[in-house]
Amino acid sequence: MSDLIQYDATDLIAKVSSGAVSHREVAEAYLDRIAEKDGEIGAYIHCDPELVRRTADARDKAGAGPLAGLPVGVKDVIDTVDMPTGYGSAAYEGCQPYWDAPCVTQSKAAGALIMGKTVSTEFAMASSGKTRNPWNLAHTPGGSSSGSCAAVAAGMALMAFGTQTAGSIIRPASYCGVVGYKPSFGLLEPAEIKVLAHSLDTLGLVTRTVRDAALTASVLAGRPGLALSADLPSAPKVGLFRTPPFDPAEPTTVAALDLAVARIEAAGGTVVEIDVPDTFITTHDLHAAVMGWEVTRALSHERTALWDQLTPVTRDFLTEKAWIDAPAYDAARAALPKVAADLAAAMADVDVLLAPAAPGTAPEGFTSTGAPMFNTPWTLLHMPALNVPALMHDGLPVGVQVIGRVGEDAKTLAMAAFIETCLDTPFDALRGHP
Amino acid sequence: MSDLIQYDATDLIAKVSSGAVSHREVAEAYLDRIAEKDGEIGAYIHCDPELVRRTADARDKAGAGPLAGLPVGVKDVIDTVDMPTGYGSAAYEGCQPYWDAPCVTQSKAAGALIMGKTVSTEFAMASSGKTRNPWNLAHTPGGSSSGSCAAVAAGMALMAFGTQTAGSIIRPASYCGVVGYKPSFGLLEPAEIKVLAHSLDTLGLVTRTVRDAALTASVLAGRPGLALSADLPSAPKVGLFRTPPFDPAEPTTVAALDLAVARIEAAGGTVVEIDVPDTFITTHDLHAAVMGWEVTRALSHERTALWDQLTPVTRDFLTEKAWIDAPAYDAARAALPKVAADLAAAMADVDVLLAPAAPGTAPEGFTSTGAPMFNTPWTLLHMPALNVPALMHDGLPVGVQVIGRVGEDAKTLAMAAFIETCLDTPFDALRGHP
Repeated sequence: MSDLIQYDATDLIAKVSSGAVSHREVAEAYLDRIAEKDGEIGAYIHCDPELVRRTADARDKAGAGPLAGLPVGVKDVIDTVDMPTGYGSAAYEGCQPYWDAPCVTQSKAAGALIMGKTVSTEFAMASSGKTRNPWNLAHTPGGSSSGSCAAVAAGMALMAFGTQTAGSIIRPASYCGVVGYKPSFGLLEPAEIKVLAHSLDTLGLVTRTVRDAALTASVLAGRPGLALSADLPSAPKVGLFRTPPFDPAEPTTVAALDLAVARIEAAGGTVVEIDVPDTFITTHDLHAAVMGWEVTRALSHERTALWDQLTPVTRDFLTEKAWIDAPAYDAARAALPKVAADLAAAMADVDVLLAPAAPGTAPEGFTSTGAPMFNTPWTLLHMPALNVPALMHDGLPVGVQVIGRVGEDAKTLAMAAFIETCLDTPFDALRGHP
Repeated sequence: MSDLIQYDATDLIAKVSSGAVSHREVAEAYLDRIAEKDGEIGAYIHCDPELVRRTADARDKAGAGPLAGLPVGVKDVIDTVDMPTGYGSAAYEGCQPYWDAPCVTQSKAAGALIMGKTVSTEFAMASSGKTRNPWNLAHTPGGSSSGSCAAVAAGMALMAFGTQTAGSIIRPASYCGVVGYKPSFGLLEPAEIKVLAHSLDTLGLVTRTVRDAALTASVLAGRPGLALSADLPSAPKVGLFRTPPFDPAEPTTVAALDLAVARIEAAGGTVVEIDVPDTFITTHDLHAAVMGWEVTRALSHERTALWDQLTPVTRDFLTEKAWIDAPAYDAARAALPKVAADLAAAMADVDVLLAPAAPGTAPEGFTSTGAPMFNTPWTLLHMPALNVPALMHDGLPVGVQVIGRVGEDAKTLAMAAFIETCLDTPFDALRGHP
């Protein structure tokens, strides 16, 4: 195992930029790691070593960009011009788009190395793909950004793109022990990514550390202010939010929150428990109505022309959601401003919220990618959120979620970095199923 | 010329549904018309008569749907699985998507006949395509939905899809003397359409009459309430809105508004002039900032990998907009709620607004598709808007624009239908360059 894969993105980019390490050396280190680990983990659906090598050599000639040498995995619902894109579905296996999605172009332009396409559940919904949890191969990595989270956890990429319509970045990041960052809606350009629900779909990032998420987002979003400053916040005000329904939270998730609270307070932060507004409990039904209506319509071609090729899980979801009509959708959308206003009032005195990222550790088996109930509200409300790994239980990681106000991504990233420091994360990602 | 093409969509669908006319007869009538007229007009970029005939024959066997026999043109920025899609650009000529966009699937499922792909300007921006104005071949049809508006105006389709990011449906509809309907943002499913600006792009419809727009939208949007009821509104309250900067409005546009006001009042409606809120004048700059930032990022691949293949008009636009940074974009987005609230207060006592649809008649020549300044505010604010043809000047049509509140599409369509009746429109679309 090359020493190179021990670095996080921020350090690796610095080394490549300074000329201490070549793009090609990074490429070989990560290709070796993929060759070594991906047979059992299955994070990548497509990886062409020769393409990676050619690109790396070209970068070595062209000079270093702001993401020089960053090994990137691209979730397979995102279009790529030089790699097939299957949208997680047998119905589109081997399809070849005519373009790179903007996030891929931006990565390439910044000098990143695209290592390959990472496994997505079918259309970023709930059908498990081939990916295993790197910490325990008998467990799900979560989904839908299964391959992206597993790849970063197992040291096969330092950044991978994810998308979240319900809980598809934050939950698998918690299950895999990596940082997941779902930005404010629309912060990262969403074009040329398979549409699931146009008012919910959010492009995000999976990384090993919060500072890596902040650095890569700052470049891709064209927002230098997102990168962490040298000094983290000194005395953050954090609101503990026991997201309803809190009952399904397993003891490990409760323990992760308790640990985070204790560590934040010990580090000079303040934690207050937020009274959950009465309207907040409706967010689950509102999300179901909005997503159900939009997904049913966005997947019109798949429902009509490709039905027999879809997985049973996808067919069941589409069948179940077909009852949602325009009045139900409109009522859900109309209810959102009041829910958002009530939440804004409840969190007026804190910088960010601290909440569960997932119900517990990754479930055993592959019939389910886990439940997104601790993620859907924040997706619905377009608020930036991060998973920060918090503790290990029975050999599996569990994280906590840090949530900020819409548009306050810089502050949310800084707060998450503070909390990450409190928690002694990141785990050594390379411990994952060693 | 077949008598069949004299009917509007509502009447034709009724005839096909009753069995009085077959899908195949409609197909042949419209194929004849395309063969006769499109050589000089150039509304279609792709039309495969055998595919249309096969589809029509299959429909005749399968039975009638709610849009039975409706001849539809699909703007070439919208993906189709059985026809190439070039996004208006030489860079993508002949590309073949793997799916139908949802709006195409919905049309097919409802029994419509897809006649072909209609010309778009490059990426639905400002480069003129090959299409001529059917009323005067020396004039632009407007853009970006050039082919869609020209096809309906010349009797080569009864409905055509358009998209609007600035003024790309309403303006060419005014220039071509057809009804253009830009619904509330997101009302028609926007998936699998080339993204230009994700918070502005709106899928809409071009038809011969308002009732056709209402009928087709009701089916495609899954909202039966959009179809017109038997009784039009009896005494609508209309707000005359001299959209600033009103100065560039030519006498024909002023005359169209004056005519509409007089006719509405004569028909029992009330017209009051709305005081333009101070903040409204900023909408042009806000739109430019939002569109500039989003387009620059959405077209990342085209800017990076395909630059040499783009038209000079597109390159100039992208070069000009590259100065817009995140703070300028964020400031524009942050200003929107106040602009919307001020406008809502100003129009509190009226049902809809009546405003210019375009600066005047279609400009001569093809160096420009005309100016969108009377359209950008309503796109930016996500409000439903229609062009209703109002009068002819020098052999060219000019329309008026009817604008409603976000989500009040049913009411806006009904009001537009009332105004259409007042104006004795539609023109005989078949008069277009006879």
